[in-house]
Formats: sequence, C-alpha cells, structure tokens
Amino acid sequence: MGSTSAAHPAPAGAASTRAAETAAMRRALELAARGPRRGINPRVGCVLLSPGGEVIAEGWHRGAGTPHAEVDALARLEPGAARGATAIVTLEPCNHTGRTGPCSEALIAAGVARVVYAVDDPGVHSAGGGRRLADAGVDVEQGLLADEAEALIGDWLFAERHGRPFVTVKWASTLDGRIAAADGTSRWITGPEARADVHVRRAAADAIAVGTGTVLADDPALTARDADGGLRADQPVPVVFGRRELPDDAAVLHGPHPALRHDGTDLVGDLRELQRSGIRSLFVEGGPTLATAFLAAGLADEVVVYLAPALLGGPRLAVGDLGIGTIAEALRLETTHVARLGDDLLVVARPASARPGAADAPNGRT
Amino acid sequence: MGSTSAAHPAPAGAASTRAAETAAMRRALELAARGPRRGINPRVGCVLLSPGGEVIAEGWHRGAGTPHAEVDALARLEPGAARGATAIVTLEPCNHTGRTGPCSEALIAAGVARVVYAVDDPGVHSAGGGRRLADAGVDVEQGLLADEAEALIGDWLFAERHGRPFVTVKWASTLDGRIAAADGTSRWITGPEARADVHVRRAAADAIAVGTGTVLADDPALTARDADGGLRADQPVPVVFGRRELPDDAAVLHGPHPALRHDGTDLVGDLRELQRSGIRSLFVEGGPTLATAFLAAGLADEVVVYLAPALLGGPRLAVGDLGIGTIAEALRLETTHVARLGDDLLVVARPASARPGAADAPNGRT
Ligand SMILES: NC(=O)c1ccc[n+]([C@@H]2O[C@H](COP(=O)([O-])OP(=O)(O)OC[C@H]3O[C@@H](n4cnc5c(N)ncnc54)[C@H](OP(=O)(O)O)[C@@H]3O)[C@@H](O)[C@H]2O)c1
Ligand SMILES: NC(=O)c1ccc[n+]([C@@H]2O[C@H](COP(=O)([O-])OP(=O)(O)OC[C@H]3O[C@@H](n4cnc5c(N)ncnc54)[C@H](OP(=O)(O)O)[C@@H]3O)[C@@H](O)[C@H]2O)c1
Repeated sequence: MGSTSAAHPAPAGAASTRAAETAAMRRALELAARGPRRGINPRVGCVLLSPGGEVIAEGWHRGAGTPHAEVDALARLEPGAARGATAIVTLEPCNHTGRTGPCSEALIAAGVARVVYAVDDPGVHSAGGGRRLADAGVDVEQGLLADEAEALIGDWLFAERHGRPFVTVKWASTLDGRIAAADGTSRWITGPEARADVHVRRAAADAIAVGTGTVLADDPALTARDADGGLRADQPVPVVFGRRELPDDAAVLHGPHPALRHDGTDLVGDLRELQRSGIRSLFVEGGPTLATAFLAAGLADEVVVYLAPALLGGPRLAVGDLGIGTIAEALRLETTHVARLGDDLLVVARPASARPGAADAPNGRT
Repeated sequence: MGSTSAAHPAPAGAASTRAAETAAMRRALELAARGPRRGINPRVGCVLLSPGGEVIAEGWHRGAGTPHAEVDALARLEPGAARGATAIVTLEPCNHTGRTGPCSEALIAAGVARVVYAVDDPGVHSAGGGRRLADAGVDVEQGLLADEAEALIGDWLFAERHGRPFVTVKWASTLDGRIAAADGTSRWITGPEARADVHVRRAAADAIAVGTGTVLADDPALTARDADGGLRADQPVPVVFGRRELPDDAAVLHGPHPALRHDGTDLVGDLRELQRSGIRSLFVEGGPTLATAFLAAGLADEVVVYLAPALLGGPRLAVGDLGIGTIAEALRLETTHVARLGDDLLVVARPASARPGAADAPNGRT
C-alpha cells in the first residue's frame, strides 16, 4: 500500500479510523459488484464516511451514461452534508469530463476531506484524479484492498492498460495436436465435460471470435449454453474475422447479440476497436487459421487447450506455422491450471514473458 | 481361484493347510523375485511342503540354462524325501523338454502328491504341465495369489501371450505436438524432471529403440543414467531400426550392451525376434518416423508423452500420418497416468480397445 507522490500521509494513530475505512472499502467492493459485468466502464463502488467514521452514503456505477459511483453516493446526501467526509472508492476517481463530469471535481466541490481508493485508473484520459484531489488539498491515499479491487475489475484494467481485450486462444485437439481427421470430421474429439467447460468460459468472456472458415464449415451458434442446452444468462458477443460472405441463415447472425465483423487484416486495430466498444475479454475459438494468426502476432494472453486421449496423425493441425525458425524462439508458456475433465485434459497457460504488444494504447472511461 | 478341469478338488476342511499353502506361495513369490529381472525365462519360485504343512525345501530360477524353480527345490532334498509333498509354485510347472527337462515329470518322479500354482503358463511349448500332473494322479490347483504372481512377471506373460515385447512409444513435444523447431533444433523442449523420468523408464525397459534418423541426427547413447549422469545398474539393450549405415563411432555402438539392428521393414517379425532373444518390453524413443510406424501398425501398447508448455508450430511433428481418414478411426486411448513434472506434463495412455495384433504367436520357455 502506498500514497501517491502528491498525497498526504494517512492520519496518525487512527487504528479505529483504519478499521472503519477497511470495512468501508469491503462494502464499496460489494457495491461495485452490483454494477454490470460488461460494458465500457468498470464496476466501481463508493462509501462516504463521516469524520467520525460512520457510513453516511453509498453509491455504485450502473454503466456508461449513468453517474459514477462517487457522484451516485454524493447525490444521496443533502447539500453540504459531505463536508469533511472521507470517500472510500474502489478505483481512482476520474479526472476527465466524460458524459458525467469528473468525479474529482465533484468530490472537491462537496468538500470531501479525504479520499481512499484501491487501484489507480490506468486510463489516459480518466487518470490523474488522485493528483487533482491532492492538489486541491484533499488527503489522498491509494492501495487499500488493491488486490481485491484488481480481481474485481481485472479484465477492464487489462483492457485499459493494453488498449485491447484480454485474448484467450482456445482449441481442442488430440494428444498429437490434431483438431480433425484427414477428411475434416471432428465430432467429438473431446467429451461432454470438456465441452461444458467451454460453455462456462464462453459465458465468462465479453466476446467470442471465430474465423469465417469455422462459420462456413460448422455454422456454430457461438452461444454459451448449460448442460441441457439452454442459453446461459451471460451471452458473449460473437465476432467473426475474415472477408468471406456469410450465408444469411448462418446461426451466428441470429443469436442473442448481433455479430461483429472484422476482416482480420489488422488484428491489432481490430482489437483496439473491440476494446473501444466495451469488450474487455475475447475468447478466440478458432479455427486453426485464426488461432495461429493470434498466436503468431503475439496477441494471445492465455491459451486454453483441451487434449483428448486419442491420436489422429495427418494434416489437420491445431496450430499451423508460427514463423518460429529455431528452438530459442519457441513461444514458452507458464502453465496456470491443469485439470482432468472426464477423459480429457485441460491445460491453461500464459506466455512466460509478456510479448511487447504493439497495441498498448490506453483509452479512457466515459 | 479355480481348479484345472483335470484337477482334483482341494482337500476338504483344511483351513490350516490353506494357510500354510498361502504363506508358502508368498514365500515362493519372494524367492522368485531373487531371479534375474531380464532374460528369456520368467522369474519363478517354489516351496515344498511336507504332508503336515512344514517347509522342507525352497528353490528359484536363476536364468536360462539353470534349473527351473521346482527342480532347484527338489535338488535340495534326499532322494525320496519329496514323496507325498505339496509343491507350491508361482507359475504352472513346464511340460516341455528344454535345456533342463520338464518340471512336471520331475515332480511326478519325486512322488509329489499335490501341486498348487499361481498362474497358467501361456507358452505354446511349455504349457500343459498342470494337465500332465493331473493325468498322473497329482492333485493340482491353480490360481492361489494369481494377481501377485501376474504382477511379478507381467511383462514376461505379455510377451508370451502376444509373441512380442510390450511396446511403449514415447515422445516429448510442445503443447501443439511439435518435437523440434523448423531448423531441427530441439534442446531442450522438456525440463530436467521430464528427462529424469525418461531415464527411469529406460532402466525399467528391457530394450530401447530408435530409428537410424535419430542416431544420425543426435548420436544418443541410449543408456539409463541417474541425476548426476552416472550409469544406472539396469541398462536396456539398444535397438536401432533402419537400413542406413551407422558411423563406427556412434555412441549407441559403444554402450554397456551391444546394439541390436533391425531394418524395420517387418516390425511384427522384428518384435518376434526381439522377444525370442529375451526382450519383454521395448521402449521406443523415436524419432517421429519410427514412432509413427509403430503407432500406425497398431504395435504401441502404451504411449508416454511429455508435453512442454510451449508452442512451436511448423513442420516437425511428433506424430506423422497414421493412415487415419475419418474421426471414427481415431486411435482412442485410455489415460492411465497424468503428472506434472516440473513445468512439463506427463501423460501415459493405452489404446482403449486392444487392436488385434498380427503377432500373437506365443513362444515357450527353454
Ligand atoms: N478443435 C477445435 O478447437 C476447433 C475450433 C474451431 C474450428 N475448428 C475446425 O476448424 C476448421 C476451420 O478451419 P479454418 O482454419 O478454415 O477456420 P478459421 O480459422 O475459423 O477461419 C479461417 C479464416 O479466418 C479468416 N481470417 C481473419 N483474420 C485472419 C488472419 N489474421 N489470418 C488468417 N486468417 C484470418 C480468413 O478468412 P477470409 O478468407 O474470409 O478472409 C481465413 O480463411 C473447421 O473444420 C472446424 O471444425 C476446430
Ligand atoms: N522429441 C522427441 O521425443 C524425439 C525423440 C527422438 C528423436 N527426435 C528427433 O527426431 C529427429 C529424427 O527424426 P526421424 O524421423 O528421422 O528419426 P527416426 O524415426 O529415429 O528414424 C527414421 C528412420 O527409421 C528407419 N525405420 C526403421 N523402421 C522403419 C519403419 N517401419 N518405418 C519407417 N522408418 C523406419 C528408417 O531408416 P532407414 O532409412 O535407415 O531405413 C527411417 O528413415 C531428430 O531430429 C531427433 O532429434 C525427437
């Protein structure tokens, strides 16, 4: 936990104040979690404490176009009632004039004396609220329960920091790396447990991507379904990469969300565009051509591989040419999770050393 | 537990006899384990009990050309001392005139009244001893501690039953099934723990096979070494498949055992020959051409796959063309073991349904 360079130190000898602030931050995290999981803006919660440490107001952000958490909390008080108060916020108050005006200004105008927030805002336009507050004489502290807050909005933070969604590349192959037999048949390489796991991961992602090759070959719906085939509450946005026309009756065009199209000739630009439209996590389901393109471009932040206990041999490879000439250039991974799913094996891994992404151009909240 | 069709039922009401026989079989298994782990003949132990259930002699087999366990035990008694005795043997007494004469005749000649053995001899020439004994009026029982005896000589039984060694095909690949980068470099795909595991498995195998391609590319010693590079006590016999000449200074030609050569054009015949020379288990270490040939021929009884958390793409595949056209023909496996070895993953699996081997032509003991 640290103070921003411009911030005053925390009030001395105030163990009970610290306890009240920590409890308030936990509450703010709960409030934040009420916000929408998807969208352009992160989930943020705010609790206002009186100088004596009593909760005087609570707020949270309900999505783009609605008040930010701090403003939502302030709005619940009579004018002047926040004077001398402490604002506990899960994310650094914003400093830009979006659709709702900067929160830092609102806190200053309300006479708030102290602001404690969990994580810095990485946004180019929205960051700097902490310094603005400190410059105005507000006592500012950063870092309280930062890990919990990072966990809550990790995908949004990633997308803000990298200017693109967190990309997971998934495939299901045999132990020898094949996704289909020579004639293209592949149903089913993996078993029901592995397929169910895919649907859970689909539901957890903001969007799900395939190439035109997969749409034309398999006509997948790209929806997240539960065991009995029903649609899950959370549905990812389908994204189809490629230039080829899709038939009007393609299942992906008739799902719960309209499908987004990108030609895929500039994946970095496409990802930036997806992030700007509020997509923080992209689950790339293949096929092999698209998966290989993401891997070769260094745009895979995670791979999710289902390995079936079978061998196929032949030409249908899960991963094609990555442009790797010699062993020292291997794309080394760190395994984060291994599990047996029925007869299959699940391996989740992340690049061992983050490849410098060409796309690290942060945006801002609105 | 069952009696052979020709056998008399076990003596009735003899709980203490049964206890003595079971204890004697445990002892016979211990004695058997003193025999050599490798060779043409299995490890067999024998205990002779007096009619009152006292141990009167013990014996075990010390390898081809030495007495079988029953004869070894009988030889420790004065002539006539085995009259009316019970012989407890871990394997069905043999019925053929090999280098040492059939054990069934020796037991009959010694006047043994009862024979209890654990597992049937699957050999074409050596089997039938139980029936020969029963025909001579000896009381014969089969199956006592059969599982323990099977475990002790499982590889020999497999080789006898199938007329070839138990074949393990091993490879080490990246998660996308590559064994080397495009330029052929591959050191090291897997880490030290996986490589140490390979050496343990080499030491457990009777022989270790590679193709000429691997010898010419890597010049491997094919020895089983421990962590500090020293030779392990058990060394497999190296077998090189292929027609190409090897350089005189190839490491594999200067190891603890002379290398065996097979051209590999008739793998079934080669395996039969290996079995006849006493090799019960073959650890096929590749390269990909040889591994693919064994897999495609349905001659892999087990695959041992080390998966490194890395991606390579490109043309150097662990498994080539298996002649599989459509998904229904996939070589389905059953995973018997999964482990994390350092950063790598070990998967051990066996064909889900035993493929009918063309090589099921049992031999016999000598
Ligand atoms: N086992 C699995 O996990 C799995 C998952 C999905 C699919 N599959 C199988 O994969 C097969 C389809 O393979 P596929 O490789 O043709 O499918 P694909 O990767 O879905 O589609 C390939 C197409 O993606 C487009 N694309 C967009 N951006 C691209 C870029 N940056 N680089 C390269 N291509 C880009 C191109 O389409 P345009 O030519 O239209 O521009 C390309 O032809 C099907 O048989 C399906 O069953 C298996
Ligand atoms: N990662 C691993 O687990 C691993 C393990 C071993 C090797 N490797 C790598 O594999 C590479 C060598 O590959 P490779 O495929 O050339 O090696 P290989 O499989 O060891 O040798 C291939 C040769 O085996 C002979 N052979 C014998 N019987 C055969 C049969 N029934 N069918 C086909 N061939 C048969 C042929 O030799 P003739 O032409 O002489 O008849 C063939 O050219 C090396 O770079 C090595 O580093 C990797």
